[in-house]
Amino acid sequence: MKVAIQGIKGSNHYKALTELFDVDHVEVEECSTFQRLVSSVVTGESQKAIMAIENSIAGSILPNYRLILDYNLQITAEYYLNISHNLVALPGQELADLVQVKSHQMALHQCSYFFTDQTHIHLIEDVDTALPAQVIAQQQISGVGALVPKGTAELFNLNVIAEDVQNNSLNETRFVVIEKQANLSDDVNKATLQFEIAHESGSLARVLNLMADHHLNLSKIQSIPIPNNIWKYAFIVDVSFQNELHFQKAFKAISAISINPTCVGQYKNGKS
Amino acid sequence: MKVAIQGIKGSNHYKALTELFDVDHVEVEECSTFQRLVSSVVTGESQKAIMAIENSIAGSILPNYRLILDYNLQITAEYYLNISHNLVALPGQELADLVQVKSHQMALHQCSYFFTDQTHIHLIEDVDTALPAQVIAQQQISGVGALVPKGTAELFNLNVIAEDVQNNSLNETRFVVIEKQANLSDDVNKATLQFEIAHESGSLARVLNLMADHHLNLSKIQSIPIPNNIWKYAFIVDVSFQNELHFQKAFKAISAISINPTCVGQYKNGKS
Repeated sequence: MKVAIQGIKGSNHYKALTELFDVDHVEVEECSTFQRLVSSVVTGESQKAIMAIENSIAGSILPNYRLILDYNLQITAEYYLNISHNLVALPGQELADLVQVKSHQMALHQCSYFFTDQTHIHLIEDVDTALPAQVIAQQQISGVGALVPKGTAELFNLNVIAEDVQNNSLNETRFVVIEKQANLSDDVNKATLQFEIAHESGSLARVLNLMADHHLNLSKIQSIPIPNNIWKYAFIVDVSFQNELHFQKAFKAISAISINPTCVGQYKNGKS
Repeated sequence: MKVAIQGIKGSNHYKALTELFDVDHVEVEECSTFQRLVSSVVTGESQKAIMAIENSIAGSILPNYRLILDYNLQITAEYYLNISHNLVALPGQELADLVQVKSHQMALHQCSYFFTDQTHIHLIEDVDTALPAQVIAQQQISGVGALVPKGTAELFNLNVIAEDVQNNSLNETRFVVIEKQANLSDDVNKATLQFEIAHESGSLARVLNLMADHHLNLSKIQSIPIPNNIWKYAFIVDVSFQNELHFQKAFKAISAISINPTCVGQYKNGKS
């Protein structure tokens, strides 16, 4: 089986893959963008893809919802990964030897407290987190550090200078597994829905009232742009339920009073 | 007056500034991150800041809502800017001379159709749009192009190789002006609210029902993380209204049934 991830081996997507699948029996497709990740599933090159959909601090990655919808893909599972940023560099290098740390803006921001006192280190924004680590290892670059998940240092033969340098230890990313087709199991208790509503006062409230009537618990709602319909929004909603029949009835009722209703996936709640 | 923007002169934030203010009478503070932009207002270094809050294709920039809330800032105005990507390079350079185009991932993605046939051009992701153009100009780099808003080529003495290379001409970014204090005018007809709700079925529906009862038109709703309360969300809502009294009464009623209700700003609808 081939599974697509965003980024390279050593990224947080790869970390999520190693926790969801047996890496010895999975071929990994490294995709440099989320667009390429989705294309890999659409073309059949990969059977599944792992995609970050929200972070507990930064919130939802709305363009990724758009990609799932545009290509009619299904969310078949979710996984919550604890985000740990670890400062790595070439073996032999210590904190005092570093003059630069290269990482994604978000990772640098999430580790700002650690670097406040390290005035000798210049923080450099990069488009990726794991990639700078790979470059440091391949080109044997001294004086430069990178921020990577736990386990990545071993992958690149780099040295961990400081563990868990993130400001906030409560930092998780929610990943979803996406596939071409739904993949329903018996223990489904969560769903992601998309719908549009008529542009009249109270129409969103009516849909949410229906959900409550059918014992669906709304955990999250996002407005996302409708393509080619400027400044009009569709709604993406996560609901949880105890009985899948409740969900089926609710979805039927919601479909009757909304526009373009879509079930984007039914899956098991991944929170432990 | 000093106004902070994200990015440098020549960026879309700068373009928005030139349309909102008289540049001859405004000092511009260039901020490399949104965090620095917000800090500039908080410390009083800048009186106002211009911040992108959503794009008509990519959707809301949720971390920017978080920044506004974390620092108790107020949205005092909004502005919608048409996004135009223009391919520029050193004078004398033509499309056939380019081997690389450097830009932000989002800009490259939004111009993908144009580059499909330009197989001699390697697209390189950068952390910014205007910055690669500035570097090309300052270091006189041949063979490399950048994607910039209209008017930026003149600023850097670069040559426009192709105008409006974006896939979708319906591409607008909504910017908000943020300040320390509210700045109410007579023609206020829109507001941004934040609130949390009790974790019980139907509680969001109850708030939306109240809004409809008070003649508020909900145009947009987003779930954003509550800091240090993992996987719990607050809601950010944009509402429009014809009568400011309706809004005041609605906000009072919503405050009675929600947690931590905040008016993040009242302002005039910026849509023309």
